[in-house]
Amino acid sequence: MRIECIAIGSELLTTRRLDTNSVWIAERLADLGLGLHRKTAVGDHRGDLAELCEEAFRRSDLIICTGGLGPTFDDFTKEVWADTFGVELKEDAKCRADLVDWYAQRKRVPPPANFKQVLFPEGSLPLLNPLGTAPGVWWEHGAKAIVLLPGVPREMKRMWVEQVEPRLKPSSGGAMHTLRMVIGGVPESTLDQRTESIRATHAHLDWTILAGLTQVELILRSPDPLALAAARAELETELGDDLACVGIGDLENAVLDALRFRKESLATAESMSGGLVASRLTAIPGASDVFKGGAVVYSAGAKLALAGLDADLLQEHGTISEATTLALARGIREKLGATWGLAITGNAGPSLDEGGKDHALGDCILAVAGAERHEVRSFSIPGDRVDIQLRSAAWALDLLRRMLIAAG
Amino acid sequence: MRIECIAIGSELLTTRRLDTNSVWIAERLADLGLGLHRKTAVGDHRGDLAELCEEAFRRSDLIICTGGLGPTFDDFTKEVWADTFGVELKEDAKCRADLVDWYAQRKRVPPPANFKQVLFPEGSLPLLNPLGTAPGVWWEHGAKAIVLLPGVPREMKRMWVEQVEPRLKPSSGGAMHTLRMVIGGVPESTLDQRTESIRATHAHLDWTILAGLTQVELILRSPDPLALAAARAELETELGDDLACVGIGDLENAVLDALRFRKESLATAESMSGGLVASRLTAIPGASDVFKGGAVVYSAGAKLALAGLDADLLQEHGTISEATTLALARGIREKLGATWGLAITGNAGPSLDEGGKDHALGDCILAVAGAERHEVRSFSIPGDRVDIQLRSAAWALDLLRRMLIAAG
Repeated sequence: MRIECIAIGSELLTTRRLDTNSVWIAERLADLGLGLHRKTAVGDHRGDLAELCEEAFRRSDLIICTGGLGPTFDDFTKEVWADTFGVELKEDAKCRADLVDWYAQRKRVPPPANFKQVLFPEGSLPLLNPLGTAPGVWWEHGAKAIVLLPGVPREMKRMWVEQVEPRLKPSSGGAMHTLRMVIGGVPESTLDQRTESIRATHAHLDWTILAGLTQVELILRSPDPLALAAARAELETELGDDLACVGIGDLENAVLDALRFRKESLATAESMSGGLVASRLTAIPGASDVFKGGAVVYSAGAKLALAGLDADLLQEHGTISEATTLALARGIREKLGATWGLAITGNAGPSLDEGGKDHALGDCILAVAGAERHEVRSFSIPGDRVDIQLRSAAWALDLLRRMLIAAG
Repeated sequence: MRIECIAIGSELLTTRRLDTNSVWIAERLADLGLGLHRKTAVGDHRGDLAELCEEAFRRSDLIICTGGLGPTFDDFTKEVWADTFGVELKEDAKCRADLVDWYAQRKRVPPPANFKQVLFPEGSLPLLNPLGTAPGVWWEHGAKAIVLLPGVPREMKRMWVEQVEPRLKPSSGGAMHTLRMVIGGVPESTLDQRTESIRATHAHLDWTILAGLTQVELILRSPDPLALAAARAELETELGDDLACVGIGDLENAVLDALRFRKESLATAESMSGGLVASRLTAIPGASDVFKGGAVVYSAGAKLALAGLDADLLQEHGTISEATTLALARGIREKLGATWGLAITGNAGPSLDEGGKDHALGDCILAVAGAERHEVRSFSIPGDRVDIQLRSAAWALDLLRRMLIAAG
C-alpha cells in the first residue's frame, strides 16, 4: 500500500513553521506495519494544491492531508478535493448542530464563516473533531482512501487515534517491529564500518543510521521480531559499551538509569555548555531522583562562589585546564553531596569569559569525579558555537555513562 | 519561476528528524523574491526518488535536493539524477584531491567508500564543501537547474550562501524585504486581534504570524521597503513594550542587549526549568559580558548550597512559593554579585523534588530581584513537561525584559 502525507499551508513553506504532523503520522503508520512513501508541503494556492491532489490520487492508495479546514479565505482543502472528483459540497446536519453547540458552550453564536466547516464532499464521511470547530473527512474511492484532518496537532492526533486508525488495516505482513539502538561516542562513518558485516548478514531488515550532533542511532525494522532479536544479539556483541540504550531513550536516559540502578547521584558544573547537561537531564521525568542540581559557572566569580573553586588554583592553571576542570567537578560534587561531579570547560566562541583566547575554538575539557575515581579528557570539537556546546554536553554525558558502566 | 525542494532520507519520514533545511532555503529564496512552490521528503528508496526526480523536473524550473550525498550504502542522490538523464558519473580531480587533503589534515586516509563522493553526473559542476566530505552539484539543463546539497545543515547553509545564491537571479519584482518582529508575553490570538486594523490598512504586504512555545513572531514581506517602514511604525505604537525585538534575534537577545546597554549583569537560579534560561542565554555569543552564571537548584540541598536559601524559610513556605522563589532570586544575585537575580520554581511533572504534589501541574512562580526593585509572578502554564519547562523559561526572560525596560 502506497501512502503519502500532504501538509497544506503557506506557513509551512515560507517561514519557520515545521510540519510535525506528518512526522507523527509516519510513526503511527509504522506501528501498523505501514510505510510512508513521501510527504509534501504545499502552500495555500488552489492551483498548486489541485495539481498535487490529482497526482497523489494517481500514485498513492492512501492520502492523508492536514490543514486547510479552517473558516478563513485561505482554507479550501475540501473544495479542491471535491473539484478533483467533480462533486459538490453538502452540509452535514450533525456537524452543523455540533458547531452551534460548540459555540453555545462558549456563550457565542458561530461567525458566518465557520459554517463552511460543516460542508463535505458528496460521498465522503465527516470525522468529528472533539477539540475544535474543524471536522475532518474520510473518503473512500474503491480500494483507495483520502483522509482530511485539521492542521492543529492536538486536534489532528486525537482524531487520528480515535477515528482514522480504526479504519486502517494493518499491513498483511503484520505489524512492523522496530529495534532502536542509541550509540554514544562513535562517529557515523565508524559505526557504518563496524556494522557492515552484520548488515550484510541481515540484509532483509530495513536499516537506517541516524547521525545527530549528540548521538548516533541505529534503527532496524522488520515484521519478524525474531529476525530483529538475532541482529540485536550480534550488534550488542559488536558495540559493547558503545551501546548507550536500546528501545526508547537517549544518552541522558542511559545516564539517569545507570545512576538510579546504582543508587547514586550527580551534580554538574558547566561553563562552556551553559546548562545544557542540566537541562537535558531535567527534561526527563524523575530526573530529580538522582540529579541534585548544578552550577552554570559562566564567570570566574561563579566558579569560585558556586563550585568552590580555589582562586589560587584558577590563577595558576587558568580556566580551560585539566586541573581547574577536575577541581570544578570535585567542588560541585562536594557542595551538593553527590556521588559524582561532572564539569565542562572550553572555548565555544567569541568573548567567552574563560581565557578563551589562549585556546582554539572547540577546545573542551571534561571531568568526572567520584569518591575514588576520576577521569579528565581533552577534546577538540568541530562546528560552530551551538554545535560545540551541544557536542560538549553529549560527550560529557557519554563519559559519565562509560564510567558508570566501568564501575560495574 | 517554479521552485521546489526535495529532502532525501528515510529518517525524514519518521519522528526522528525534521527537515529544517528546506525551511531555511525557503527563507533565503524569499529574500530574493523567489517563492517555494512545494517541498517533498522522500525515503532512501531508489524507486521512489527516481519517480520524484522525473516529475519534479517536468513541473519545476529549479529543483533543490538536500541529503543522500554521503559515503554510505543508502546515499544515491547523484546516481539517481544521473540515471534520470541517462548519463554516467565521472570523477572530479579537484574534489578527489580535496578529499585526500581533508583526511590528511586529520592524519588519516579516506575510507574507500568516500571516493564515491567525488563522482558527479556528466555535464554538472561540483559545489565545494568547505566543512565536510560531501561536495554538492550544480546542474543546468537549458533554463532549468538542479542543485544537490548535503543534508547536514551547517554544510548545506554555507554552500548555499557562497555558491548557490550567487548563481540565482532575483525575481524580476526585485529583491524581497522582510520585517520580523518578536513579541513577548502576548498570545497569538490576542496579537491577531490587536494587529487586525493595521493588517487591513497594509493588506498589500505579505503577513504571517508565527506562534511558538516561547514567543510569537510577526513576519512581513514586501518588495517595497517604504511600505514595510510605514507598517512598522504603526506596529511599534500598537505593541509598545510587548515588542521584544525587530530584525534578527529572540527574547534572549533582547534581554542580553538591554543588560549590556545598562551595563548590568544577571544571575539565575532555576528549579523547574532545569537550566533552560542559562542555556538559552549562553547560546548567544558574548553572553558572558552580562551573564555571570547560574544555579540549577533541582534539589532542596542545591537551593541551600548554591543559592544561599535559608533552610527555615524553605521549611516554612515550601519550594513552590513566592517567598522561596524571591529568596532564590535574591540569593543567587548576591552570591554572584550580579545586578539582577532571576529564579524559577514550579511543577513540571512527576516526581519533581519540590513538593510538586501540593501544586497543580504547570504551576510556576517567577521572581526577578534587583537592588531596589523586585517582581514575583505566579502562573499556570499549559502543556506537557517539556512545554511547561520551555514556557517557564521564556516567561521568565520576558518578565526580566519588561523590568529592564521599565527601569528606563
